[in-house]
Amino acid sequence: MTDPSTLVVSAHAGDFVWRAGGAIALAAARGERVTIVCLSYGERGESAKAWREGKSLDEIKRLRRGEAERAAAALGAGIVFLDAGDYPLRETPELTDELVRVFRETRPSVVLTHPLEDPYNGDHPAAARMALQARVLAQAIGYPAEGEPLGAPPVFFFEPHQPEMCGFVPQVLLDITEVFDTKRKAMECLPAQRHLWDYYTDLAVRRGVQLKRNAGPNLGLPHTTYGEAYMRPYPQVTGVLA
Amino acid sequence: MTDPSTLVVSAHAGDFVWRAGGAIALAAARGERVTIVCLSYGERGESAKAWREGKSLDEIKRLRRGEAERAAAALGAGIVFLDAGDYPLRETPELTDELVRVFRETRPSVVLTHPLEDPYNGDHPAAARMALQARVLAQAIGYPAEGEPLGAPPVFFFEPHQPEMCGFVPQVLLDITEVFDTKRKAMECLPAQRHLWDYYTDLAVRRGVQLKRNAGPNLGLPHTTYGEAYMRPYPQVTGVLA
Amino acid sequence: MTDPSTLVVSAHAGDFVWRAGGAIALAAARGERVTIVCLSYGERGESAKAWREGKSLDEIKRLRRGEAERAAAALGAGIVFLDAGDYPLRETPELTDELVRVFRETRPSVVLTHPLEDPYNGDHPAAARMALQARVLAQAIGYPAEGEPLGAPPVFFFEPHQPEMCGFVPQVLLDITEVFDTKRKAMECLPAQRHLWDYYTDLAVRRGVQLKRNAGPNLGLPHTTYGEAYMRPYPQVTGVLA
Amino acid sequence: MTDPSTLVVSAHAGDFVWRAGGAIALAAARGERVTIVCLSYGERGESAKAWREGKSLDEIKRLRRGEAERAAAALGAGIVFLDAGDYPLRETPELTDELVRVFRETRPSVVLTHPLEDPYNGDHPAAARMALQARVLAQAIGYPAEGEPLGAPPVFFFEPHQPEMCGFVPQVLLDITEVFDTKRKAMECLPAQRHLWDYYTDLAVRRGVQLKRNAGPNLGLPHTTYGEAYMRPYPQVTGVLA
Amino acid sequence: MTDPSTLVVSAHAGDFVWRAGGAIALAAARGERVTIVCLSYGERGESAKAWREGKSLDEIKRLRRGEAERAAAALGAGIVFLDAGDYPLRETPELTDELVRVFRETRPSVVLTHPLEDPYNGDHPAAARMALQARVLAQAIGYPAEGEPLGAPPVFFFEPHQPEMCGFVPQVLLDITEVFDTKRKAMECLPAQRHLWDYYTDLAVRRGVQLKRNAGPNLGLPHTTYGEAYMRPYPQVTGVLA
Amino acid sequence: MTDPSTLVVSAHAGDFVWRAGGAIALAAARGERVTIVCLSYGERGESAKAWREGKSLDEIKRLRRGEAERAAAALGAGIVFLDAGDYPLRETPELTDELVRVFRETRPSVVLTHPLEDPYNGDHPAAARMALQARVLAQAIGYPAEGEPLGAPPVFFFEPHQPEMCGFVPQVLLDITEVFDTKRKAMECLPAQRHLWDYYTDLAVRRGVQLKRNAGPNLGLPHTTYGEAYMRPYPQVTGVLA
Repeated sequence: MTDPSTLVVSAHAGDFVWRAGGAIALAAARGERVTIVCLSYGERGESAKAWREGKSLDEIKRLRRGEAERAAAALGAGIVFLDAGDYPLRETPELTDELVRVFRETRPSVVLTHPLEDPYNGDHPAAARMALQARVLAQAIGYPAEGEPLGAPPVFFFEPHQPEMCGFVPQVLLDITEVFDTKRKAMECLPAQRHLWDYYTDLAVRRGVQLKRNAGPNLGLPHTTYGEAYMRPYPQVTGVLA
Repeated sequence: MTDPSTLVVSAHAGDFVWRAGGAIALAAARGERVTIVCLSYGERGESAKAWREGKSLDEIKRLRRGEAERAAAALGAGIVFLDAGDYPLRETPELTDELVRVFRETRPSVVLTHPLEDPYNGDHPAAARMALQARVLAQAIGYPAEGEPLGAPPVFFFEPHQPEMCGFVPQVLLDITEVFDTKRKAMECLPAQRHLWDYYTDLAVRRGVQLKRNAGPNLGLPHTTYGEAYMRPYPQVTGVLA
Repeated sequence: MTDPSTLVVSAHAGDFVWRAGGAIALAAARGERVTIVCLSYGERGESAKAWREGKSLDEIKRLRRGEAERAAAALGAGIVFLDAGDYPLRETPELTDELVRVFRETRPSVVLTHPLEDPYNGDHPAAARMALQARVLAQAIGYPAEGEPLGAPPVFFFEPHQPEMCGFVPQVLLDITEVFDTKRKAMECLPAQRHLWDYYTDLAVRRGVQLKRNAGPNLGLPHTTYGEAYMRPYPQVTGVLA
Repeated sequence: MTDPSTLVVSAHAGDFVWRAGGAIALAAARGERVTIVCLSYGERGESAKAWREGKSLDEIKRLRRGEAERAAAALGAGIVFLDAGDYPLRETPELTDELVRVFRETRPSVVLTHPLEDPYNGDHPAAARMALQARVLAQAIGYPAEGEPLGAPPVFFFEPHQPEMCGFVPQVLLDITEVFDTKRKAMECLPAQRHLWDYYTDLAVRRGVQLKRNAGPNLGLPHTTYGEAYMRPYPQVTGVLA
Repeated sequence: MTDPSTLVVSAHAGDFVWRAGGAIALAAARGERVTIVCLSYGERGESAKAWREGKSLDEIKRLRRGEAERAAAALGAGIVFLDAGDYPLRETPELTDELVRVFRETRPSVVLTHPLEDPYNGDHPAAARMALQARVLAQAIGYPAEGEPLGAPPVFFFEPHQPEMCGFVPQVLLDITEVFDTKRKAMECLPAQRHLWDYYTDLAVRRGVQLKRNAGPNLGLPHTTYGEAYMRPYPQVTGVLA
Repeated sequence: MTDPSTLVVSAHAGDFVWRAGGAIALAAARGERVTIVCLSYGERGESAKAWREGKSLDEIKRLRRGEAERAAAALGAGIVFLDAGDYPLRETPELTDELVRVFRETRPSVVLTHPLEDPYNGDHPAAARMALQARVLAQAIGYPAEGEPLGAPPVFFFEPHQPEMCGFVPQVLLDITEVFDTKRKAMECLPAQRHLWDYYTDLAVRRGVQLKRNAGPNLGLPHTTYGEAYMRPYPQVTGVLA
């Protein structure tokens, strides 16, 4: 039996806050270890404001790194930066190998990453493909990386910005009501994307409405329930249907 | 809070044994109420042996009913027969209304039924469509049937005989190891389909192999694990990703 | 050349406001004729508040009819009620035939209706199937109904409440900014569903954000753009790619 | 407001004629700028006749280039050759970067390219993937290439040779009747593929028949209408449903 | 071992000629029995010319029946008319039961019918659904109709008028070159649809081009090869991969 | 006319036995040439037992090579090893070029390979993509490799370990009853995977049950029929529907 451990693979600094901040905060609140891997800082593709202000590439990377560190701390998670570059994030054997090493080290019991389709941002599917491949490679005893081979942790894809255009169908609705304040605080660590604070608060309300609509008869849910939506690329394993 | 209650909507007598016997036995073993509704006896479409022996329609219905009662008892479940006829099972407002009444009465917290596609047997999707419609109607306070409006219980589609031809993808793998002996005994209550006893035992082993392959690192599973596969037409609602 | 005419086929009184109020108001603002057909009042399935207040079926129908008439008037559209009953809305040849007559009479150049999938409400797909069939039948010179055979008007499916669960992908983003105030006023004609006023205002903002993100470089759009999303079951016919 | 500009990304010299000649001629006839980018000459994979005649690689490239230049001129468009090689056309960061520069330079308001699936020719999807990625990269202010960041121009996939095998569904039917003679003349600039002149004339007639069948009641179309079919990977943005 | 027998289930008189005339003529040329069942005459939906000429319903039915009889004779097939009405063709238990009886009587080794989707003509999918259901019912010994229960004959869906809009993917390309003259003669038995003679000749050429492109290296095919395309809803059973 | 020749492209040593042993044995039994290409030995990803025993990489490769040679010999096929490495198998232009040369040399009339999806093992889709691309390149006279350009041999995807998770739908059921003993002997050449011997025997029985259920009425099949399932990415070309 290993301890619970959540690994979040995020293409850019920031993605993990909007899309999975609730799940991260919930796991941290249960006292579990959470590790966020940012493959890039989102320095080219998701920092328009800083570029318009005339900042340099290095300044922007430092800026985004600082914001992401503060947000991770607010959520209660550790964070690692691989600085692999964005727009485009290149899918290479070397970067995948680095991820295998992270898997072997963090030994996740749960993995969160982007879904495999996103016509608006190719970095997201590239990150997801590498995360999924690294997870499989880390399971093979013959793969030449430190540490024991992994079990097969469940994977959850978090919600993209335009879900319907990415083939995203909510298969899991996670109740994040009790940690929503924490998620909001983490969002507020990202001042350059202030317009997204309310956008993702509204999304949490809407997913909460759907959560209540799909909840069985036995749940006594509060008037305002906040939710996050996920997909599963692998089957759920369980001892009870519910 | 209502008590846990499982409702199984089965097109023919027998379907519930092969496809959901493990889930039923697990719920019963937890001391929960399980109700099986057989829309027909499978008297025309799934009783070839009896017809070849020259039995009459009434004899066949009696025979199938008896077998199904014994199988349900072995699993620890109650059983109701609506005798709506098979091959074809006709989708009518009256039969759907009968199902609404069953929903209002049994107040299920979990619903099991057939998937919506089956090119080999049109009765299965017809049963599923009526079960799903009845579940929605039972939720409306304005629907004129006895009892309180229902919450929205989760639904699980059980595995059809030729899963790949029915668009069936295992989304939930249920560990039925601890009740597999009970399921086998229930199968043995159906002597006319003796050739299926081993067929569905093999299937349980195969789904068990997949269950182990998809289980997270923390599960200590026995060498032989038995499984059943299900699909979810509605999102899972949960407080924890696992 | 016939005059522009929009026909909206709505399962229940109310659907047309939340889902297509902007498109209706835009057409009316252009001075075009818009006809809304409500197949039912939504008296059983979408009037929970009234039932809880102990109102009778007839009172509820009158109530919903009045609200829908006021909302249609606010949008600038005509409205017709077929009173076919809801929960379930039954798909019958007779009701389809009534719709054929409406098509022949209103001679629509644009048709709006529900999408073909909705696992939360079977009345919506039933309405859509009848609307689509009636549109095809109305095109046949041999179909025995008054009036000339129809051309083949384009069809737009409006957005369901849980789009991702209904296979709904926004294929058309309609800019409704200039009539959004009118749509909001029409929503406010439906006091029993007050909780949806803000919900659908938020949705309009979100679809507006996506509209701006997908707009070509030549559009000068305001800071807050409101949008509605639609799908097309038939190809767009055009003289220019844009 | 920028001027209208159409960018066509074609895997091989020739593709743009058969598949998008009508759209190109229409834009040119409206006085708009059209730029065709041929990633390769189709020298290995689509020049069987020349190889059988014993021509050298260089001769074949010159030959195909000359034909494509004449066809582009006939249609009224500019043409650029990147000479990246075919069979296979290799997807590289460098070639994608070249395309970003073309996007920043031509500032397209409309983009045409191949669809993303083609089991008969892997160069077509490779071209499409690079075109789509370059379009996204060109929108980022942080991407290090000359010129201003782009808006988000609509994209149209043109029709592949075996549409049903490529998941191609006509979502837009473009009326090219008024420029069909021009398209035919451009086709006749490609003598090595003489067998395709009638093949693609027949296709234009067939798409024209479908165009008439899907046109609304208000179009007065000529007996013979010529059409081209397109798909949209992104939603249409519009101010009016039609 | 029963004798080869082909059963064609056609919604309207005429469908079988355009879509499956080659397959029918090939089977007849091999000396096999072919039976065409026309569920309706296409009297309302596919007889626009006759209605415009002012003919009565009875005259039109007689006319269409005569044409279809001549076309069937030209192809070498028997034909049966069930006169169930069209536009809409209603799906009823009684009509399905009539089809079961046809299946039990003709004992088909091959079944041809429409595909299950057609947004332009609801009669086609309705015919297909009834044909498929009747085929399954006819296999059950318990179904109360004359004759022995059927084996499970393979089913082929023939090509609809707008294949891409009907989810039609050619899975089988049938070489009809040797009987194409016969098919053309059968088409010429339908003078009211003269515009389709060349349309379906062009289609046969195009499917022939694709047939050659997909044929293995060992086929020596003539310059002009004519083809018909089909889909299979059930797996092919074979003793050799080819 | 070339002689029949089957080419099997397998990611790892061993895959061809479990998944296509029956098809290989049938072709060999007909006196046809069969060539198996193993892109890797499966030394890292599919040799867990050997790694746990402390064997070295070279030992493991030798071991797997020996087993695969014996299994190929048992089936009557030739075998070639490209030793490209596994976990991950890297998709490179050089490896694809090697495959083109194999295609030109073996001149296959039938090609067998993995399907294009497998969330449990990325090497399988990588092998399939390279096999499909090489098959297309080998058809081009302009491709610079020895030998004549190829025709277009049909391709069959063999069954993956978890078919439903790989989008695998059995489109062809191959009767391997007469060579099943040979397939079992070939499986027994792979002692490290002893647990799969019965697993794949059970699968053959199950596919045989489905084969009988889908066979037309004219097949007189034995009580125990063994089968293998395949998919076709390209249409079947035939002179007779059956």
